[in-house]
Amino acid sequence: VNDETLACWRPGATRNTILAFLRSAGDVRPEERVAVFDNDGTLWCERPNYVQLDFFVAELRDAVARDAALHERPEYTAVLDRDAEAIERLGMERLALALAELFVGLEPDEFAAKVGRFVNTARHPTLGAPYNKLVYAPMRELLDALRAADFATFIVTGGGTEFVRAISRQLYGVDAEGVVGTLIAYELLDRDGRPTIVRTGRIDGNAMEGAAKVEGIQRSLGRRPIFAAGNTWGDREMLDFALTFKGPNLGLLVHHDDAEREFAYEGQGAVVRSSGSITDLGQQSGWTIASMRDDWKTVFATT
Amino acid sequence: VNDETLACWRPGATRNTILAFLRSAGDVRPEERVAVFDNDGTLWCERPNYVQLDFFVAELRDAVARDAALHERPEYTAVLDRDAEAIERLGMERLALALAELFVGLEPDEFAAKVGRFVNTARHPTLGAPYNKLVYAPMRELLDALRAADFATFIVTGGGTEFVRAISRQLYGVDAEGVVGTLIAYELLDRDGRPTIVRTGRIDGNAMEGAAKVEGIQRSLGRRPIFAAGNTWGDREMLDFALTFKGPNLGLLVHHDDAEREFAYEGQGAVVRSSGSITDLGQQSGWTIASMRDDWKTVFATT
Repeated sequence: VNDETLACWRPGATRNTILAFLRSAGDVRPEERVAVFDNDGTLWCERPNYVQLDFFVAELRDAVARDAALHERPEYTAVLDRDAEAIERLGMERLALALAELFVGLEPDEFAAKVGRFVNTARHPTLGAPYNKLVYAPMRELLDALRAADFATFIVTGGGTEFVRAISRQLYGVDAEGVVGTLIAYELLDRDGRPTIVRTGRIDGNAMEGAAKVEGIQRSLGRRPIFAAGNTWGDREMLDFALTFKGPNLGLLVHHDDAEREFAYEGQGAVVRSSGSITDLGQQSGWTIASMRDDWKTVFATT
Repeated sequence: VNDETLACWRPGATRNTILAFLRSAGDVRPEERVAVFDNDGTLWCERPNYVQLDFFVAELRDAVARDAALHERPEYTAVLDRDAEAIERLGMERLALALAELFVGLEPDEFAAKVGRFVNTARHPTLGAPYNKLVYAPMRELLDALRAADFATFIVTGGGTEFVRAISRQLYGVDAEGVVGTLIAYELLDRDGRPTIVRTGRIDGNAMEGAAKVEGIQRSLGRRPIFAAGNTWGDREMLDFALTFKGPNLGLLVHHDDAEREFAYEGQGAVVRSSGSITDLGQQSGWTIASMRDDWKTVFATT
């Protein structure tokens, strides 16, 4: 930790709090240095749509181009027509499951190749950059600084586990086993005498939001975080849990208050939702609030 | 890879095959260098009982000393009286669930402390050494050699995930998130205003044997192994799956044929069982058979 650490962060209270945490972590046993990050809205842009939804819609368009009858399925009609009322009525879970059906039978590397192609070539609808440029430079820098301080860094996301795994090493330096997300079940089949793992259309366990994030960390990682970063009500339990560590700890909330460089909104969460202000909650809860507008010198690595 | 690599292995065909694999893995992309190991009977001794069973019985004896009425529960009677007929009749799953009830409500670090204390102080009933000395030195050496060749090393075990996590870093150099096993569900509770993760008595998902091991690797790790080691029918699918990698791959079977230094038996598996010979299957399947008697210069680090 020196003057060059977190150069994408503006000098000030937020950066100082993070630097102090990094320094104090030297007193924590190495195996207890565990940091968890939400993904959408915390490590990369989630507006106007989750990147995964944009990917699913692009794949749906390809599928409809091959078989027009698919358009008639109510979930697909709602998504393709951007019918907000129908989307609200059908619900995120039903829509997600319908979209996940597009990939049933794929092997893991086939699915990962599709995701990688999309993230590295398709462009964000309003910002114009390819999705792989929509990682927040200050957060990528924070991941690196934590690893330099011997932290294990993990991603705990409401998004699809395999979707995030497909790009986590490239974008975040986090290997596949470090991603805890909403799981699609895979099953072992015999294909022409060759044991093969393929995607099903079933969700395995719960959507990874709220308390499920803390339980998912225990189940998949078996270690307790002393640092957690998030941006919505779906990250509340994970941040509060990190703060129960009896030693150096930090809960970091990314606050989207930068309409000029990104978007301005109060983070909600896809499943766990509240109409209240997440920043108000964060202040009451002892979280550190990172203002995108005030605390970040740069937002995206390209700007 | 040099002359000192795998010094606990006797010169010969088995060691040569492993060394050739380690050398050829240099051509594999680093993120594809993934090795998975079964635990009981592959990394440490599983006879006459699984270490976890010995631990559960020791804890049960403590519990009965505090509350004699516990002895009357049929599952506990069977285990304490070593009633083979009753054990067979009740079945491993029912017994394991009954024993797991002893730990309901514990926090992860409380459970881990109990396991660590047992493994580091209690002694094996016939070999006399503490359980932490019953790791196979040649396998520990192989784990290290794989990591030196930039492999990620994981444990995929029918045993309890948290039981193995409690000792995996100490005994094997594998962090908690690298252990895939049979899961007990944890839940997030509020204890005096403090969010707390505690053990339940429920199994989360399937017992981790057979096809479940391959599915569990995908679910928890999201990477495909190109090396797998096991010793029973419960490891068959995992070894066969490793051999489907189109590049350097190895399936290693630890064969217990050393009644003098350890035990002589054909590996069965706790859930997935067959009366057939696992070594015959291994030879038909293209696995490499490691004979404990012929291929291992030393068995335990203490001998």
